[in-house]
Amino acid sequence: MRILLINPNTSDSVTALVAKHVETIAGDAASFVPVTGRFGARYISTRASAAIAGHAALDALATHGNGCDAVYLACFGDPGLLALREISDVPVVGMAEASCLEACRRGHRFAIVTGGALWRPMLTEFVASLGFADRLAAVQTIAPTGGEIAANPDAALSQLAAACTACFTDDGADVVILGGAALAGLAAQIQPMVPVPVLCSVEVGTHAAIAAAAKQFHRSEPPPALDSIGLSADLAKWLGQA
Amino acid sequence: MRILLINPNTSDSVTALVAKHVETIAGDAASFVPVTGRFGARYISTRASAAIAGHAALDALATHGNGCDAVYLACFGDPGLLALREISDVPVVGMAEASCLEACRRGHRFAIVTGGALWRPMLTEFVASLGFADRLAAVQTIAPTGGEIAANPDAALSQLAAACTACFTDDGADVVILGGAALAGLAAQIQPMVPVPVLCSVEVGTHAAIAAAAKQFHRSEPPPALDSIGLSADLAKWLGQA
Amino acid sequence: MRILLINPNTSDSVTALVAKHVETIAGDAASFVPVTGRFGARYISTRASAAIAGHAALDALATHGNGCDAVYLACFGDPGLLALREISDVPVVGMAEASCLEACRRGHRFAIVTGGALWRPMLTEFVASLGFADRLAAVQTIAPTGGEIAANPDAALSQLAAACTACFTDDGADVVILGGAALAGLAAQIQPMVPVPVLCSVEVGTHAAIAAAAKQFHRSEPPPALDSIGLSADLAKWLGQA
Amino acid sequence: MRILLINPNTSDSVTALVAKHVETIAGDAASFVPVTGRFGARYISTRASAAIAGHAALDALATHGNGCDAVYLACFGDPGLLALREISDVPVVGMAEASCLEACRRGHRFAIVTGGALWRPMLTEFVASLGFADRLAAVQTIAPTGGEIAANPDAALSQLAAACTACFTDDGADVVILGGAALAGLAAQIQPMVPVPVLCSVEVGTHAAIAAAAKQFHRSEPPPALDSIGLSADLAKWLGQA
Amino acid sequence: MRILLINPNTSDSVTALVAKHVETIAGDAASFVPVTGRFGARYISTRASAAIAGHAALDALATHGNGCDAVYLACFGDPGLLALREISDVPVVGMAEASCLEACRRGHRFAIVTGGALWRPMLTEFVASLGFADRLAAVQTIAPTGGEIAANPDAALSQLAAACTACFTDDGADVVILGGAALAGLAAQIQPMVPVPVLCSVEVGTHAAIAAAAKQFHRSEPPPALDSIGLSADLAKWLGQA
Amino acid sequence: MRILLINPNTSDSVTALVAKHVETIAGDAASFVPVTGRFGARYISTRASAAIAGHAALDALATHGNGCDAVYLACFGDPGLLALREISDVPVVGMAEASCLEACRRGHRFAIVTGGALWRPMLTEFVASLGFADRLAAVQTIAPTGGEIAANPDAALSQLAAACTACFTDDGADVVILGGAALAGLAAQIQPMVPVPVLCSVEVGTHAAIAAAAKQFHRSEPPPALDSIGLSADLAKWLGQA
Repeated sequence: MRILLINPNTSDSVTALVAKHVETIAGDAASFVPVTGRFGARYISTRASAAIAGHAALDALATHGNGCDAVYLACFGDPGLLALREISDVPVVGMAEASCLEACRRGHRFAIVTGGALWRPMLTEFVASLGFADRLAAVQTIAPTGGEIAANPDAALSQLAAACTACFTDDGADVVILGGAALAGLAAQIQPMVPVPVLCSVEVGTHAAIAAAAKQFHRSEPPPALDSIGLSADLAKWLGQA
Repeated sequence: MRILLINPNTSDSVTALVAKHVETIAGDAASFVPVTGRFGARYISTRASAAIAGHAALDALATHGNGCDAVYLACFGDPGLLALREISDVPVVGMAEASCLEACRRGHRFAIVTGGALWRPMLTEFVASLGFADRLAAVQTIAPTGGEIAANPDAALSQLAAACTACFTDDGADVVILGGAALAGLAAQIQPMVPVPVLCSVEVGTHAAIAAAAKQFHRSEPPPALDSIGLSADLAKWLGQA
Repeated sequence: MRILLINPNTSDSVTALVAKHVETIAGDAASFVPVTGRFGARYISTRASAAIAGHAALDALATHGNGCDAVYLACFGDPGLLALREISDVPVVGMAEASCLEACRRGHRFAIVTGGALWRPMLTEFVASLGFADRLAAVQTIAPTGGEIAANPDAALSQLAAACTACFTDDGADVVILGGAALAGLAAQIQPMVPVPVLCSVEVGTHAAIAAAAKQFHRSEPPPALDSIGLSADLAKWLGQA
Repeated sequence: MRILLINPNTSDSVTALVAKHVETIAGDAASFVPVTGRFGARYISTRASAAIAGHAALDALATHGNGCDAVYLACFGDPGLLALREISDVPVVGMAEASCLEACRRGHRFAIVTGGALWRPMLTEFVASLGFADRLAAVQTIAPTGGEIAANPDAALSQLAAACTACFTDDGADVVILGGAALAGLAAQIQPMVPVPVLCSVEVGTHAAIAAAAKQFHRSEPPPALDSIGLSADLAKWLGQA
Repeated sequence: MRILLINPNTSDSVTALVAKHVETIAGDAASFVPVTGRFGARYISTRASAAIAGHAALDALATHGNGCDAVYLACFGDPGLLALREISDVPVVGMAEASCLEACRRGHRFAIVTGGALWRPMLTEFVASLGFADRLAAVQTIAPTGGEIAANPDAALSQLAAACTACFTDDGADVVILGGAALAGLAAQIQPMVPVPVLCSVEVGTHAAIAAAAKQFHRSEPPPALDSIGLSADLAKWLGQA
Repeated sequence: MRILLINPNTSDSVTALVAKHVETIAGDAASFVPVTGRFGARYISTRASAAIAGHAALDALATHGNGCDAVYLACFGDPGLLALREISDVPVVGMAEASCLEACRRGHRFAIVTGGALWRPMLTEFVASLGFADRLAAVQTIAPTGGEIAANPDAALSQLAAACTACFTDDGADVVILGGAALAGLAAQIQPMVPVPVLCSVEVGTHAAIAAAAKQFHRSEPPPALDSIGLSADLAKWLGQA
């Protein structure tokens, strides 16, 4: 099985970090094709950069998606998720959506912990858009952004553990998602310091992508062909097919 | 991997039917230990029978659960799910919960089709208890119960296909769950007659149970030991351990 | 009038405590038939014990319910309430449901205070299942369980009063339910220490049960007869009648 | 016990009709003091007339409320309910609120049937203001207004029965409230034609008012005294007391 | 353009204060006809005074509304808003509703700050009645009432600024409404002390009223004529016309 | 006043149509700077085209936004609205958001009618994202897309009128939004055939944009500067400024 791994920001180093973790988790179960966004922000931390990333993710699918069995959108916040799913012939798994679904299976009220304060309202709205607002106990962010945490993860561990624990003690969460590509692998490190299960969003998404690729998939009706200008040749062609 | 397959009603024939489907789906991925409820209704079709089945499912876990890597509660409606999860050392997957989570990944508004009119309010309340009411387009039931459908599936196919299609045309669902152990395998048969994806609840649950068994599992805090009377020796012992 | 008073846990001492309070409140208005669960936990404090208690309550109704004018399920959390109502020929009043309904009449946002930390999520979900989440200001629990409070109520009074007051000052509740059979009679004792009305769940339920027994009752359609195994002879017979 | 029965419209004939029904239901349990609004619409059928009726109900309480043990606001829609409750020293029962609470105890999803099309949005909003929107299956109105039905009830019976039945078959209600002072007593007449329980709002409110008057009542903090102009002397005096 | 400016309490000084602010904001864009309630509380601070004010607002419209192009109900809490809108031939703008709508355009989660603790539950319920509960971050009140703030605004500035800032830091609001006629003009003064935008409810309402008066207006179906007693001649006449 | 009028699809003819209507509505009140998306679909009718349009709208702002007093995003569905608002120094008005806010002021439950069936789920989700789901009565679409309606509006008039009327009779809407740039001006034509007010989204948005440009504007904290690649020079520069 071959799974397209889209990092919709434009940092090859983040793509490499995520790909390394994903491949370790996947083992022989699937091979991943990592691809970085062609345009947009180095790190996605604002609404504008997320909006652009939605376009970049579509572009990445059109350029590299042929022949894949599934798509893994590996940015916590899932920019462009529903649009990707609309035009893809194969299953599309979003890292944040998959994590929320798994959290719903693991506990009654879940929380999200990530880096970068601007993500708090964006992720709160994302969870609400899934219809899961009633199960969200809290979104807590720590000051360093995902990029900063990835650069120096050890410095962030105790902050992350404290935030996860506060989600339990203050907000009543019984499971916590450690969200973000840049936080890959940290959940296992902080689990001993946190009284409730901590989910690694990269890991949850990887398992979900492999599972989706393995199952038989009955696609919904594709949208009508679109006439467009100014897009990459691949994306224009992809959208131009009914 | 070894997965406890609990059929919480008391019909061995339903257990055998589900086990056959589950084993076909699982292949070599896991071995399943099928167990039938020791007491309760032959078929679960009312609130009273579902309440009793919650107890029967706990009893089945206590009697047969040691050494398993996961529990698959294979009755659409998931009687006793949260109680099982509370006392189990390994992951517990409910057929209806797993189907709803998968449906949320596959479409924006999902519907449930099953047999037996009394299930409609019960399943509507179940979905609401998951916090997913905003994503439920409809619950539609056909007149024959699950037991009657299992006895004569061919007779029900066109009714089921019509109900699934109505969920799309009348209720706006973009994915439909064919719910119930007794309907195992029928989704694939009616898919060609339905314009949106149809999920088989038995199959979705099987995949979810295997996936849960394969992942590392950090258990939530177990509940305190309970003193009890009148329960089976196994259940009393299980609950009596902190 | 004769009202079946079901204590669905298996502690005769709790049944006696509740019966004493109920009979004092009722005076000549009705006579109560107290019955204790035949099997299950001594005290209900977890999801598993509540699930078993749902079965035990059905069993109690089938064994002792003939000839009663109403049923009073006297365990705050109401295990088996909807299943009892489904199979009963007479009105069924749940202690927690009745308390929530009365609280809605008395204030705009109500809170629940009880003993035992595990009840917090269970009662929050119970209120949500009633559709009353928007009117719930808080569920606050104090550390001793209901059983411990019943054994030494004086020690708990100031803790309970403080929790009730915090529901007003911190959570904006304008009425508080003191929930639980084991807390019978304590509401009146702490009322002088609390700035908003405090309802005694045992008392509210008693009045509701008497009122229900006194009114003419048009029963909803009974469920179909169920074939079963392994149940008490009384319950099997009760469920086996259409 | 003495209960103030407020009809907040200005039709003495409606007051007399309701009082007759209420007294029959109450028997010796309580005596009722019927009072008609001093100003406002003959029949309340619009938002403007309901707004004026809120003031008229307060005026009636101030003029006639001294010495009563409870207040029964006998207009389905409960104009001024929360304001009455704020300034009253004794419990206040609203006919619509009491009916909705009773309906929640009797079924899982309730419907309201009444006369006069303009009540539909008003009652839908009223139920939402109670926080009970999730349990409301439908509000159905028939063309004649409450006043017209009271004048010629026999003509309306089959229309009312058809509307109640449609609430079950089309909207999934398992209990129906026949709402409105002018419909007093009709529920029993149409019950044989309707497959689910039909509640008479006048009767439910009467029982609730008697029950409220009989219980010990701990009043919430009264509001501060208000300085006013242009009100009746009684109302000005009542509001002017802290 | 001529806009009726209704102050539904009975304090001419508040009317004058609001009118002065409104006229400064409006400049030449419209002329305002200020009118004070004929009866009711000097200051509206309780549910009873708000209920009476609903009637007073209708009375003011009937007496002074002829020939106006719009109605501006200038009391934060909007007593009688929907009833006014029902019977008015021209657009009706409520100060609180207009402020909430503008706040929704300016931020994702808004808060309200005003004077007088009793307004907190009333405004929370008002926002819920608009269907905007999901966007309300908090209602915070400071101890002095609106009337006291109007009498000595400088003393309240730092309290108001602190409350507005707390709405951002503690409750996550990204825009704050300073609500109440008596707080006219204070938003601009505290804006430099608050990290998120602060809206003046008087100003927002004024702009909304002018905009509504300027646009073409297609009125909804008027309600049927009402027969009434005991109302002012103007109101009786207004309601008596179909 | 100078207002940037962004048409985020790539059809100059749609831009010209909208600009003509907007300028007629605005008269001397403001001058509009119309701009068409540089890349993306000719007509936005799918999730993918809307996602790309969010990027195109940001690009248009960065290229043409300097010196404007407000931004009017003139595509019903408002692609990129929150991202535009995040990075803009001046108010941003979305056509759909402005229409929903106005509809909330005009009626209690509003409906949306537009062209193109795929918009139905997208607009339902959009309204939910505003938190206004409780006030949405229905989204009804007619078969021709916006582009087809613009090409031959007369043919669509009776279909649109029928859909608007059905929103009232079937869905209980008391105000209807005719949504979409391509439907500019049709609301006035169908109003005589529809029993409730019909709002023209282009007109409502124009008034809202002018009003926003005229008011003093206190901007929220701007986001941090972003490092990016592959964007237009203008957009990269705009995002690169703190």
